[in-house]
Amino acid sequence: MKIDVCYTPDLIHQYEVENKTVVVIDILRATSCMVAGLASGVQSITPVATVEECEALGAQGYIMAGERGGQKLPQFQLGNSPFEYMKPELRGKKIATTTTNGTQAIELSKKANEVVIGAFLNQKAVVNHLNKTKNDILLFCAGWQGKYNLEDSLFAGAICNALKNDAEFESDSALCALYLYQSMASDISYYISRSNHASRLTKFNVREDIEYCARVDEFNVLPKLKGAELVL
Amino acid sequence: MKIDVCYTPDLIHQYEVENKTVVVIDILRATSCMVAGLASGVQSITPVATVEECEALGAQGYIMAGERGGQKLPQFQLGNSPFEYMKPELRGKKIATTTTNGTQAIELSKKANEVVIGAFLNQKAVVNHLNKTKNDILLFCAGWQGKYNLEDSLFAGAICNALKNDAEFESDSALCALYLYQSMASDISYYISRSNHASRLTKFNVREDIEYCARVDEFNVLPKLKGAELVL
Repeated sequence: MKIDVCYTPDLIHQYEVENKTVVVIDILRATSCMVAGLASGVQSITPVATVEECEALGAQGYIMAGERGGQKLPQFQLGNSPFEYMKPELRGKKIATTTTNGTQAIELSKKANEVVIGAFLNQKAVVNHLNKTKNDILLFCAGWQGKYNLEDSLFAGAICNALKNDAEFESDSALCALYLYQSMASDISYYISRSNHASRLTKFNVREDIEYCARVDEFNVLPKLKGAELVL
Repeated sequence: MKIDVCYTPDLIHQYEVENKTVVVIDILRATSCMVAGLASGVQSITPVATVEECEALGAQGYIMAGERGGQKLPQFQLGNSPFEYMKPELRGKKIATTTTNGTQAIELSKKANEVVIGAFLNQKAVVNHLNKTKNDILLFCAGWQGKYNLEDSLFAGAICNALKNDAEFESDSALCALYLYQSMASDISYYISRSNHASRLTKFNVREDIEYCARVDEFNVLPKLKGAELVL
């Protein structure tokens, strides 16, 4: 089994996604929300690239969710906070979501053999699944507006660390994600709080979100793309 | 003073190079060769993008140097080894060089306020210069065929570490390069030997080159781009 890490969507052209298991990672906050929501009873989450597509699904009865530049859109019911996704009234509901980075990365992964959703919140479930797959693995960091970010790379490193005895690292991206994780493993939450993205989000009073997204193994679930929908 | 790190030429579109001091980094082996050669008496080194441009300068009396895929081209006098660049018979000579990654990164930096050449071999000279400049700084890793690599990111991290008290980090790329360096600083040579690029080069029997390129502060020189030429 080979494993590689793509640090941002702007580098995805360097990788083959066909035949692979792709793990999409957007720790702050899209994939953390997806894990928290589906683990809390949301029926499905449909990621879409544009606000217009989201509104079209909203007209069909979907709950509309998402952000642009870290802020909820006024016409949407939900923003991009994991706490919003865990509300009891969303049980059994279908959500359509569009975010700055995470939903774009999912869109770019659609030719993969399978697309699963990773976050610290479901880290062990991701590792357990990858240990069973026969596919090669691509850990795909959503980044921030195409740029490298700390928190997604750090989670990719956590997965590389968990698989390091069984998987062959295909590139320095995987190797350096591992080293980064090993240097930060003692205090994930602190290092994420030092990231640029965390600094940007602090303006929007979402410190609790950031702390929550750094929690490891809150949920033993693995969201997976089936057609256009993420489901468990 | 702001400092940022671009991990590969495939991400350079995310950065402004205008008005900046750009440090081009290709540890294995282009920028290490440039430092070693100019420090050893080579008069100038002209980086060019293509083999044809190199041959055209060769016809004008330049020494032709460079590689494709890590190997010397048969019609060239020099390959891409720092030892070749330090030969006494090259003193006072002009070299034209084309390499897989390093010369492309220099080409992409030409709109900068100034372009300087960085390697472990002249680390302190780079830091001393950056401490004096009033420009913002971009550390530009040449990578490998557009991909992220360990050794260039590690050197970028060494520079971030040296400037961390005086410079503002513009992104997580700079922050994570710093963390990577801090986790590897105890044994630069070992970590570079674990990189993918080092593995590839080992096939060509260049272990001595790799060890040499990991040496810190062999030369107190700063190659700088003047027109089309690198000079001291």
